Amino acid sequence: MESFTPETDHPERKAFWFDESVTEVFSIKMALKNMNFRTRSPFQLIEVMETFQFGKTLVMDGQTQSAAADEHVYHESLVHPAMLLAGTPKSVFIGGGGEFASAREVLRFKSVERCVMVDLDKVTCDVCREQLPEWNAYRPEWGVQANNRVTGAALELNGTNGAFEDARFEVFYEDAYAWLETHEDKFDVIIMDICDPIEAGPGYKLYTKEFYTFVQSRLNPGGVLVTQSGPGSVYNVKSECFTVIHATLQAAFDVVVPYATDVPSFGCNWGFNLALNVPDGDVAKAPALARSIRDKPVEEVDADIAARVYGENRFLDGVSLRGIMGLPKSVRRECAEEDRVMTLDNPVFMYTG
Amino acid sequence: MESFTPETDHPERKAFWFDESVTEVFSIKMALKNMNFRTRSPFQLIEVMETFQFGKTLVMDGQTQSAAADEHVYHESLVHPAMLLAGTPKSVFIGGGGEFASAREVLRFKSVERCVMVDLDKVTCDVCREQLPEWNAYRPEWGVQANNRVTGAALELNGTNGAFEDARFEVFYEDAYAWLETHEDKFDVIIMDICDPIEAGPGYKLYTKEFYTFVQSRLNPGGVLVTQSGPGSVYNVKSECFTVIHATLQAAFDVVVPYATDVPSFGCNWGFNLALNVPDGDVAKAPALARSIRDKPVEEVDADIAARVYGENRFLDGVSLRGIMGLPKSVRRECAEEDRVMTLDNPVFMYTG
Amino acid sequence: MESFTPETDHPERKAFWFDESVTEVFSIKMALKNMNFRTRSPFQLIEVMETFQFGKTLVMDGQTQSAAADEHVYHESLVHPAMLLAGTPKSVFIGGGGEFASAREVLRFKSVERCVMVDLDKVTCDVCREQLPEWNAYRPEWGVQANNRVTGAALELNGTNGAFEDARFEVFYEDAYAWLETHEDKFDVIIMDICDPIEAGPGYKLYTKEFYTFVQSRLNPGGVLVTQSGPGSVYNVKSECFTVIHATLQAAFDVVVPYATDVPSFGCNWGFNLALNVPDGDVAKAPALARSIRDKPVEEVDADIAARVYGENRFLDGVSLRGIMGLPKSVRRECAEEDRVMTLDNPVFMYTG
Amino acid sequence: MESFTPETDHPERKAFWFDESVTEVFSIKMALKNMNFRTRSPFQLIEVMETFQFGKTLVMDGQTQSAAADEHVYHESLVHPAMLLAGTPKSVFIGGGGEFASAREVLRFKSVERCVMVDLDKVTCDVCREQLPEWNAYRPEWGVQANNRVTGAALELNGTNGAFEDARFEVFYEDAYAWLETHEDKFDVIIMDICDPIEAGPGYKLYTKEFYTFVQSRLNPGGVLVTQSGPGSVYNVKSECFTVIHATLQAAFDVVVPYATDVPSFGCNWGFNLALNVPDGDVAKAPALARSIRDKPVEEVDADIAARVYGENRFLDGVSLRGIMGLPKSVRRECAEEDRVMTLDNPVFMYTG
Repeated sequence: MESFTPETDHPERKAFWFDESVTEVFSIKMALKNMNFRTRSPFQLIEVMETFQFGKTLVMDGQTQSAAADEHVYHESLVHPAMLLAGTPKSVFIGGGGEFASAREVLRFKSVERCVMVDLDKVTCDVCREQLPEWNAYRPEWGVQANNRVTGAALELNGTNGAFEDARFEVFYEDAYAWLETHEDKFDVIIMDICDPIEAGPGYKLYTKEFYTFVQSRLNPGGVLVTQSGPGSVYNVKSECFTVIHATLQAAFDVVVPYATDVPSFGCNWGFNLALNVPDGDVAKAPALARSIRDKPVEEVDADIAARVYGENRFLDGVSLRGIMGLPKSVRRECAEEDRVMTLDNPVFMYTG
Repeated sequence: MESFTPETDHPERKAFWFDESVTEVFSIKMALKNMNFRTRSPFQLIEVMETFQFGKTLVMDGQTQSAAADEHVYHESLVHPAMLLAGTPKSVFIGGGGEFASAREVLRFKSVERCVMVDLDKVTCDVCREQLPEWNAYRPEWGVQANNRVTGAALELNGTNGAFEDARFEVFYEDAYAWLETHEDKFDVIIMDICDPIEAGPGYKLYTKEFYTFVQSRLNPGGVLVTQSGPGSVYNVKSECFTVIHATLQAAFDVVVPYATDVPSFGCNWGFNLALNVPDGDVAKAPALARSIRDKPVEEVDADIAARVYGENRFLDGVSLRGIMGLPKSVRRECAEEDRVMTLDNPVFMYTG
Repeated sequence: MESFTPETDHPERKAFWFDESVTEVFSIKMALKNMNFRTRSPFQLIEVMETFQFGKTLVMDGQTQSAAADEHVYHESLVHPAMLLAGTPKSVFIGGGGEFASAREVLRFKSVERCVMVDLDKVTCDVCREQLPEWNAYRPEWGVQANNRVTGAALELNGTNGAFEDARFEVFYEDAYAWLETHEDKFDVIIMDICDPIEAGPGYKLYTKEFYTFVQSRLNPGGVLVTQSGPGSVYNVKSECFTVIHATLQAAFDVVVPYATDVPSFGCNWGFNLALNVPDGDVAKAPALARSIRDKPVEEVDADIAARVYGENRFLDGVSLRGIMGLPKSVRRECAEEDRVMTLDNPVFMYTG
Repeated sequence: MESFTPETDHPERKAFWFDESVTEVFSIKMALKNMNFRTRSPFQLIEVMETFQFGKTLVMDGQTQSAAADEHVYHESLVHPAMLLAGTPKSVFIGGGGEFASAREVLRFKSVERCVMVDLDKVTCDVCREQLPEWNAYRPEWGVQANNRVTGAALELNGTNGAFEDARFEVFYEDAYAWLETHEDKFDVIIMDICDPIEAGPGYKLYTKEFYTFVQSRLNPGGVLVTQSGPGSVYNVKSECFTVIHATLQAAFDVVVPYATDVPSFGCNWGFNLALNVPDGDVAKAPALARSIRDKPVEEVDADIAARVYGENRFLDGVSLRGIMGLPKSVRRECAEEDRVMTLDNPVFMYTG
């Protein structure tokens, strides 16, 4: 993984392909090396594949969730901006996150004392730990300081232990919405790492105005929510759900910062939205606060990461944070102009291939 | 073009596909609507296609050059950063640029008095003007002020006239290297909008240290060169030529600023490099100069564009300029570590599908 | 056409493909050379393509109807067995047949005095004549003796005149069922060259027991009906409609002879069924009659063709007639065991891609 | 296997495809269910796949060798015509045949006392027995009477024992040409079930005039040779090797009977050639002999099979034997006109995808 090198020396393999729809009229095709594993959980079909270009890949209901070659791009992009913005977050909630890679990134933050992950599908979680152990593992060179949650002894950094073994980590296999409703725990950061809102799935509730309004009761003051927000390229932010999720968050929070990053195995840029409230409730300060998040000096970000995170990032630092925040003018305009808001009664669904 | 809408309402069309290789083991597949035009020039096969996702598309030797849906992303990204950096450029040289869209963007800069374009292949240029007239045209709402180079009268902004008709524009159909060698004209900005360096093509000379050294003699003081630099995603900057072009420029110029932008119809991020020299020759100032280019305040850029460019951009402004400059940490490291330099004797070639 | 040679010397063309579904999980992919023409009639989308492998191809609603390289295989297989079986047929009815190639084959039989073709879709017929003139044309070397139906003079065999110009030919653009109901004309041979029975199409009525029962009133004594019957390979005779059409005919006629031929551009063998009644009504003779059709001595067939047909066949003769009649044991068993019969109230539909 | 049913109820699986080239500009695409096994022998890459359409499939160097859904079509077509023609063959030689399915069909003939199989690649043979045990096994209902070659006791017909366990069977892992040269054994039937002649492979020697001349010394009087002969559809008999193999055999034997059968998983018809000599050496009798083979009465063939073969065939009987012998007129003409003969010095190679 450290040095992921696509194997291209087997020309005969070009007979087998993973052809994944990005839209109805656009797809990406990856030469397939192996179909490693497949099972069906009560919720979805779970497959682990290996492509020559992107290595081992988790595929759910035919759609790539993350791939060896660039899962770090996705997970650093999802987790770090919110964590850095939250100052010194102690408690973090992850909705979804079955690969345990979001948890891995959260727990690299030294200030974190508790990370709760709630994923509906235990089967997916088990498959990920077994088939994709690198997604969960702490690399020895990171020097993470943590205890093993079973033995209580210092966690051994042997390349296989990671988030799942960390005593700061708790996992529940149930609906994230229900868990939050039935628990009064509050968090400094809430990370929504769930499937896209699709017609067939119950997960769409976690993208509604109702959820975003309710969930503020579970954020500590100064808390930050971030959610993956679907495709984020110039041509599909509106036809998919990026602008809708942005507008829905905007209907519930004072400040919403959209951003997007190039995750090659997804076939297009991928979008995210950060959401938070103005500390003193003075919404007139929201635009300046949004701008300060986007324009944070590069050196400050780098210093923050150096001080607060175990080990080195591969993708995210001060410069690339500016990169992902620097959305195209047309995308920002489409976010601003979006007037659809997702509610329990009026959901908006994505293309599902 | 303003509101390019992919047509997705013809399910029966999904029988026809444009399957374009990005690498040997990765390709993008676009549902094909039409094969509009095909001819063979002395240099290459030229085709104009129409895909449902990206609209009319210029394809040369089987590779997408630009598409209706996102040619503005590519051309604004190529042209504007260099033009903005050059202050008030009066004279601009374009190497390649057959679609006339780079010229279009150059001539939107009010300060420009002369734009010379030198493209080897007249057939390509003619095809583009005939098949892709929107690539060349000035939109009426831009309010470009220019004369018609034939009539001398004010250029009529009727949606079809554009760069080609502009009296400030000159085009030569020959080798760009040869033209520059045989002309002593100097330019404020040199824009290299040429095909990728491939084994079969003569164009690779325009990516060598020899060219980059020589071409400085054709830049006015404070002048800026920019070159398209091939694929620029995390997984292919090194296997393709982005880092090599960067290192080669670095061997000839004081300051080289790499950047990349998401051009969806290309199947991956696309890379560029800006190159310039420190005004007073004090190379110790190079890092700070590079940083100041990357970190230019958003509001300054927006004000610059508003003051200096006819009409509004669709992609590039202060925020998105930061976006394209904000390369991933791993990409910047690979640029810094690249030790291959392209010379006439030791060229490095790209994958050609 | 005489010497159809696929062009394979344009490697760059392998970017464009016609990917046609044979079943939901199986398709054929042909490198696409041109998209020549497209229009939408009131009934269907009509496209003319050119592939490197099979040349010009008529595609309706995304499905290949016939291709330059092997339309002769399909049309000789459809027309000649029935015509040969009918002795010296004078009057022939064609249901469908928009390419005019079935008519062309019918009119190569010297005994034919009248050929009536009834196709629902005039647009398709016009497109075929304009875009695929070779489908209609008589080759000069055939030496067809006929008059021009406009001038009355002997038809000029210049390679463009053909069935459509033949004075023996009449065409009506309406529903074949309706035409037969409203006309009391009788025919020696009835050839059903229509689209497969699909849910969306009205044509399924022409595959029902009701039609097959009624249509006998339009056959002269000793008359023969033949119908194209969809995919005919070992794996899809039952999942498509071959066995059902066979069983439905069997419910209406004394003798039904199924056969199939390899039409490469269709992606699988293609099926047909011949249907006729025992001359004297003694159904006990049916098996022997069926056997005698299948086992007709090779030399007799060759002599028949030589005597009765203008010009030489490219595909069909005594040997290949035995070939197409020689269905696999499993296919014949599936025909015999099929108990579904298609009626107006209980249609059975094919996969439509 | 008895009732091979393609699974089509997993729409999400249509993301994975086996795209196999038939020619440079034509391929077949099968939805891929599993990649079960892969290994590399000293000679080739061996893979076992599973497609939804054709089930488990043996793929060598990226090319389908045989598939669950239609291996019986291929192997009955290869083995039975030659065995039936040879009267009551006692000794049979198989060159190649790694799946053990040709041996299975040979050993279903009651007269066979010895079947020698010589395949170069032991690894392939071992993989087939382990991964594709149904290819080798005798079905209990066949009632094969044979002894186990290890125990000597009657072979238990439990669905897993088969050709490999049969005491009449011997297998050698070496070059078939060399084995025949170094052994003076003679055979009633010689079956060449080897890879197509390709540039990279040593197997092409087994398609040369030299081999066909030599091998007659290993045939008993009245003996028959049959060889698989590559693609056999109207468009590719000449561009591939069918007509060349035919002409080469014709240069060595008195009588050569070409035939072809629809093997859907191969993407086109598949060709074979039977070769034998006129018993009394009077070559004037060759045409009549060839004709009598092709025209053998259906009932005689059926009676022969019933008397001489254990169990029932699924594909081949009297009718379908006529079917495969009934080549298109154009194919027979191309066979007759072929003047290329394959020799050790002048091999002709097939397209290899």
